[in-house]
Amino acid sequence: MQAELISVGTELLLGEIVDTNAAYMSQRLAALGINLYYRHTVGDNLSRLKAQIEVALGRAEVLILCGGLGPTDDDLTREGIAEATGRRLVTFPEAEEELRKFFAARGREITPNNLRQAQAPEGAKLLPNPVGTAPGILLEHSGKLIFALPGPPSELQPMWLNEVEPRLRARALQAGGGTAIFTRTLRVADLGESQVAHDLRDLVEGQTDPTLAFYASPGEVKIRLATRAKSQEEAAARFAPLEAEIRRRLGTYVYGVDDESMEIVVGKLLAERGATLAVAESCTGGLLGHRITNVPGASRYLLADFVTYSNKAKQDILGVPEEVLCEHGAVSEECVRAMAEGARRLVNATYAVATTGIAGPTGGTPSKPVGTVYMAVTNGVNTKVQGFVWATSREVFKERVAQMALNMLRQSILGELP
Amino acid sequence: MQAELISVGTELLLGEIVDTNAAYMSQRLAALGINLYYRHTVGDNLSRLKAQIEVALGRAEVLILCGGLGPTDDDLTREGIAEATGRRLVTFPEAEEELRKFFAARGREITPNNLRQAQAPEGAKLLPNPVGTAPGILLEHSGKLIFALPGPPSELQPMWLNEVEPRLRARALQAGGGTAIFTRTLRVADLGESQVAHDLRDLVEGQTDPTLAFYASPGEVKIRLATRAKSQEEAAARFAPLEAEIRRRLGTYVYGVDDESMEIVVGKLLAERGATLAVAESCTGGLLGHRITNVPGASRYLLADFVTYSNKAKQDILGVPEEVLCEHGAVSEECVRAMAEGARRLVNATYAVATTGIAGPTGGTPSKPVGTVYMAVTNGVNTKVQGFVWATSREVFKERVAQMALNMLRQSILGELP
Repeated sequence: MQAELISVGTELLLGEIVDTNAAYMSQRLAALGINLYYRHTVGDNLSRLKAQIEVALGRAEVLILCGGLGPTDDDLTREGIAEATGRRLVTFPEAEEELRKFFAARGREITPNNLRQAQAPEGAKLLPNPVGTAPGILLEHSGKLIFALPGPPSELQPMWLNEVEPRLRARALQAGGGTAIFTRTLRVADLGESQVAHDLRDLVEGQTDPTLAFYASPGEVKIRLATRAKSQEEAAARFAPLEAEIRRRLGTYVYGVDDESMEIVVGKLLAERGATLAVAESCTGGLLGHRITNVPGASRYLLADFVTYSNKAKQDILGVPEEVLCEHGAVSEECVRAMAEGARRLVNATYAVATTGIAGPTGGTPSKPVGTVYMAVTNGVNTKVQGFVWATSREVFKERVAQMALNMLRQSILGELP
Repeated sequence: MQAELISVGTELLLGEIVDTNAAYMSQRLAALGINLYYRHTVGDNLSRLKAQIEVALGRAEVLILCGGLGPTDDDLTREGIAEATGRRLVTFPEAEEELRKFFAARGREITPNNLRQAQAPEGAKLLPNPVGTAPGILLEHSGKLIFALPGPPSELQPMWLNEVEPRLRARALQAGGGTAIFTRTLRVADLGESQVAHDLRDLVEGQTDPTLAFYASPGEVKIRLATRAKSQEEAAARFAPLEAEIRRRLGTYVYGVDDESMEIVVGKLLAERGATLAVAESCTGGLLGHRITNVPGASRYLLADFVTYSNKAKQDILGVPEEVLCEHGAVSEECVRAMAEGARRLVNATYAVATTGIAGPTGGTPSKPVGTVYMAVTNGVNTKVQGFVWATSREVFKERVAQMALNMLRQSILGELP
């Protein structure tokens, strides 16, 4: 079964907003095992929108549009679907009633433009939108499903979960004769894509069912297992031996599965042990704390994060000895060790992790070029330090150091840091 | 002049990553006055990639592809362009040399797969990539320009600025008979789009040249001025009176222009004054520090950021009095004031900014629901506090609080915080 997505809106083509809806829907479709071969973005222009709908309907069984359901003359998704399917736009009285109620409840006057939101192609079904004025649209046309969803993610996501996904799941099972595609993603840190490919070469070359594919993104490689099965349980049984073999080869380089980010994994490990964490950052500048606190409930383990950007703060706050700063400098094994140990002591945490480095683009020296970084983890008994030189952009440098520091913390908690 | 974008990568169609490159390039094209009518995403599949390239070349003068230039067998952008244009893939010896040097410098072995990155369609020009292994590709074919750029934003963006944009600008000037479109964007914080539209209504209704348009994105409104001119200087002279009038009406709500983010603007204000900054964060969890340190040279003004996530850390590190925590709680006007003042004193900074709130999804109470937040700014003489209730997701909450706190700091430095 094949789907196609069209995001509608000139603001997308001007780059004013990033299309997170497309990624959201893509991820949900992948989890349903529905193939997505093309995604498109068109502006608020009726003829181009109509043309792209026609192309997509020529290929896919399911077409999903998002955006362009607003009340202004620029919102043309209703018209685009009507023209591409040769149907009239009609007003849905119950939708008009809803709109009038919505405006009355907020003491606002309804305009003729607002009433455009009660229109849809003849034969369509309107999908309720409890959090906005634009109902969604579902049209069955020539055996295909066409969905149109509102652009704001806060309206699109509940409508997707409540109205779109149940219908797609039923259709996918039906199309697959009672089976659908299931996936499991193993997440790998601290190993490059080519190393992973090398270590698993025979598994990749000999793959049949489940299939095996790699996706590299900054700081990690994802290994995606996929199989066609009748149920989650049947799929899980088929994944298990392959996953066990991959884990046997890659060991603790596999840090998580599916949606588990490094900060979620580390948070779970800390929470399970009733352990607490202190952080000391220099070159990552707060990114470690930001990632750790993106996880709901992080207050159970994170006590404090000291972003000691100046040497004086490293000395005064964390107690890094002046001799260390004078003799070895702030970007040194000795300094990062003192930072981690100082932060841990200061709030009496179980673990502490620290970073110091030269993010660039300036500040490098011949002996310590831009990209030099040291990271330390301590549990109060042992302190481990690693150093690297990663020449890249400031943003990527921060991302990569934060990911590696979290991974060192993870390995330290697991007792597997060499 | 019309361009079309194709993002290449199955990881995009699986929703594993959000396509920020498409937004970046869209924005740059808009600023060059080049029309972008369609954007597409295709997976790592040669026949579908080839088909989409052919469709795009049938419409646009400029085709830009991103992604799919990596070393693996899944990276098919080189092959896609070659097939769609009927050209052979050839190895570029100087690119092979560069690759060998890159690997040797890092002590890594080069594999035959890596050498695929030295290939391009016959007749192409390779575009240098100083920060990665994948060179870009420029192919002139039937009077059209085809660019292929690497997927990692840290590699794509410098290549765009150094290699793509100068060629597009030259082409746009040529196509426009010596003129091109120039734009200037005024960035507005802490005012809604409808308020901006209201304040500038007559300017919008009476617009001729330059034209005027608004784009709302999370935490800000952008006002885009555009004109067709022979040069940047001619355009600047035309923007000046309109910009002055807008600034007269909106005052310091206009915080920056073009690419100036709030953290860049705040950093400039601090650096110009030789002032220093301390930060104390609770609910933003490091995001404020992360944003401030994304600006190169932030070490000139940022002394330290104390992410005091636990009450004990607020008390022990920042000196928030126990009575404040007992009587008013950690999410209170009194606490955020003590956090800001404590952080400033601790490192003797000129300014300090602090945040405390309930990011959710748990932790709310009837009197302090999820979304409650207090922010403070102090200069050692005066401390200003603001409080809000912003019910939204954890991520958006952190973003919005960080933006507002930085804006309070900006207004405080300018002496305009009420």
